[in-house]
Amino acid sequence: MIDPAALAEELIEKQGGKILLVIMDGVGDIPDAETGRTPLETAKTPNLDSIAPAASLGLAYAIGRGITPGSGPAHMSLFGYDPTAHRIGRGVLEALGVGLSMGPNDLAFRANFASKDAEGSITDRRAGRIPTEKNRELVAKLNKEIGCPEDCNVTLTSGLEHRFVVMLEREGLSDELTESDPQATGVPALEVKALAPEAELAARCANAFVARVNEVLGKLHSNSESPANTCLLRGPAMFPKLKPFGERFGVKAGAIAAYPMYRGLAQLVGMEILDAGATLEDEFARLEAAWAEYNYVFLHVKKTDSYGEDGNFDSKVHEIERFDGLLPRALALSPDVLAITCDHSTPCAMKGHSWHPNPFLLRAEHAFPDGAERFTERNCQRGSLGHFASLEAMPLMLAHAGRLAKFGA
Amino acid sequence: MIDPAALAEELIEKQGGKILLVIMDGVGDIPDAETGRTPLETAKTPNLDSIAPAASLGLAYAIGRGITPGSGPAHMSLFGYDPTAHRIGRGVLEALGVGLSMGPNDLAFRANFASKDAEGSITDRRAGRIPTEKNRELVAKLNKEIGCPEDCNVTLTSGLEHRFVVMLEREGLSDELTESDPQATGVPALEVKALAPEAELAARCANAFVARVNEVLGKLHSNSESPANTCLLRGPAMFPKLKPFGERFGVKAGAIAAYPMYRGLAQLVGMEILDAGATLEDEFARLEAAWAEYNYVFLHVKKTDSYGEDGNFDSKVHEIERFDGLLPRALALSPDVLAITCDHSTPCAMKGHSWHPNPFLLRAEHAFPDGAERFTERNCQRGSLGHFASLEAMPLMLAHAGRLAKFGA
Repeated sequence: MIDPAALAEELIEKQGGKILLVIMDGVGDIPDAETGRTPLETAKTPNLDSIAPAASLGLAYAIGRGITPGSGPAHMSLFGYDPTAHRIGRGVLEALGVGLSMGPNDLAFRANFASKDAEGSITDRRAGRIPTEKNRELVAKLNKEIGCPEDCNVTLTSGLEHRFVVMLEREGLSDELTESDPQATGVPALEVKALAPEAELAARCANAFVARVNEVLGKLHSNSESPANTCLLRGPAMFPKLKPFGERFGVKAGAIAAYPMYRGLAQLVGMEILDAGATLEDEFARLEAAWAEYNYVFLHVKKTDSYGEDGNFDSKVHEIERFDGLLPRALALSPDVLAITCDHSTPCAMKGHSWHPNPFLLRAEHAFPDGAERFTERNCQRGSLGHFASLEAMPLMLAHAGRLAKFGA
Repeated sequence: MIDPAALAEELIEKQGGKILLVIMDGVGDIPDAETGRTPLETAKTPNLDSIAPAASLGLAYAIGRGITPGSGPAHMSLFGYDPTAHRIGRGVLEALGVGLSMGPNDLAFRANFASKDAEGSITDRRAGRIPTEKNRELVAKLNKEIGCPEDCNVTLTSGLEHRFVVMLEREGLSDELTESDPQATGVPALEVKALAPEAELAARCANAFVARVNEVLGKLHSNSESPANTCLLRGPAMFPKLKPFGERFGVKAGAIAAYPMYRGLAQLVGMEILDAGATLEDEFARLEAAWAEYNYVFLHVKKTDSYGEDGNFDSKVHEIERFDGLLPRALALSPDVLAITCDHSTPCAMKGHSWHPNPFLLRAEHAFPDGAERFTERNCQRGSLGHFASLEAMPLMLAHAGRLAKFGA
């Protein structure tokens, strides 16, 4: 089957209406065991209710039935990039998550501070889950002292507890590498090995980096300044080569997201990042300020997912209501196409991402009016858009914006 | 787009819940012209009714809209093997249907007893549809006298009337062969020819086999002991090379089916065959006995299809009711995931397989509760699972059993 977004790309007309895509992260859910209602069904959403009847509804699958997507692939698919064809390495997502930008010569790893004994056997893969504060201190010292192993520019960035991100920069690197984490204690860390000839240099760089970390941390450890005396590397990944969003779809695209991971994903496909403050109100203010300049804006609502992950049904409901309260500010901008959906479902009962499909609402002049009373999972199940692949969202939005030519004559 | 079952295979976690897949062969139907109700709508099914409201429903397509599947592809697809990519030759299905096992050196043909005149022209492609009893007699004699043409081990197995299965066993065979059946009378049987260089040996073996059959039957025919004096070969097929089900999906899988064809199909993908008696009650008893040892069981209900093929609406209804009466024994085993569906529809009005999609019911802790009153075609049309490819059934069941990791991060 043809990639629907790639087909849309063939048909792009460089003018047309303005598109606003709101991703309410993880908003899709399953009914609460007691009330029989989902968060969307429970929330009081007068503004969503007011736009539902004239909108087209449907259910979107980021990948397919039964497949639980990570945030990376789930967003990629709504952005029009087939996530099974463009796989984004874990190191890249981790780097984006801590707010790093990446260039074409960057090789990113997720790394753990770890402990080894005198013989080199790993005794704790997380160095006792050291406090984030200590992590920051160690990362600062390493950044200062690590130098340029094998002529790489090295940058370490703290995550939480024992986690950090390593970025190696040098021409000629590759991510066709094995990991150094043995996934067990009582055995030595593994050497990073090249899985392809063109990755030999990258393997040498990674191993030289670990050797330097061992020297620097070894010294700190012997002075009792560091609980960790080594590190483990996982998820080696280069920045994927993607044709930029604006070039593919003929739009000037901006992204508004409070969390670094989602700014990173938007950057990955070449959207401009519109910096905003940390709250949903800040995001809407930025939207209002930027709207005149862009013809595609992606606005990310994070906390619906966070509360789903926490299993906090009431707060998820509240977050939906908070979004609903702000929605009129988006409607006042009169986007030609407004799509509201999620990247994946995060059912409170499951406290995590799930494979359940994503409620999708499309509001546009020529949208078939489904007459639904509300924007809920059940109404979306019966919607006129049917059950479709998220990868079709981009063609749908572009078409309703008058941005797609006819296919064939 | 990627094969959904192959994607699931990438994400397999080797632990999780237990899955029971019930295939009610051909149960899907269209409404009776008089009553306006399908067999599922007509049957009294208090037990199916009791599980319907909390289950997710949908309609599954074995191949796609308009495509009527044979039993082979229809089952393969529910088992997670793309039937358009893994085509199973007719000879193999015929061999499985008569209860044969096949190994990697076996080449199977469907064969007819036939008649030819003194010049060698075929006069009857079915030798007057000889009685099955006579068929058995001839097959027994041939098995005794045929010897080893071209060093092949040869086994003939009777089917009904004029039909039998030929199995040639020798290293180096291939199924890239033409057929010997001219599909007409008044012309000689065709020589079997190789369609690829590696099939030259197999062609020689097949032709040597036919020559021996002609000798043996010729003698019997001249003594009036056989109405047939030759045979015709069709559907040459080797056993397909498939990665075993348990290895792909990380489950210990067992199959319970009274009919040889379905045991054969399960064996083809590497499930263990759990022998049971001939009745549905026997199958349920076997299920109860085996359940503790397996984490995936496929249970086959045959007669819903048989009565559909006969156009016997009432008996099809009765068979559904009989299954419903036994269902509590399956529910008592508390499978984490219970899927009830069919491989294809067999509408009574059509007396054969059809392209109509397959009602699908999924019962699991996190299944979206559709609130349907009953498990029927019409309720499945509106279900939350939507209309999907049977190939997605495997990912869906695995996800609900907690056996799939997240795709990407």
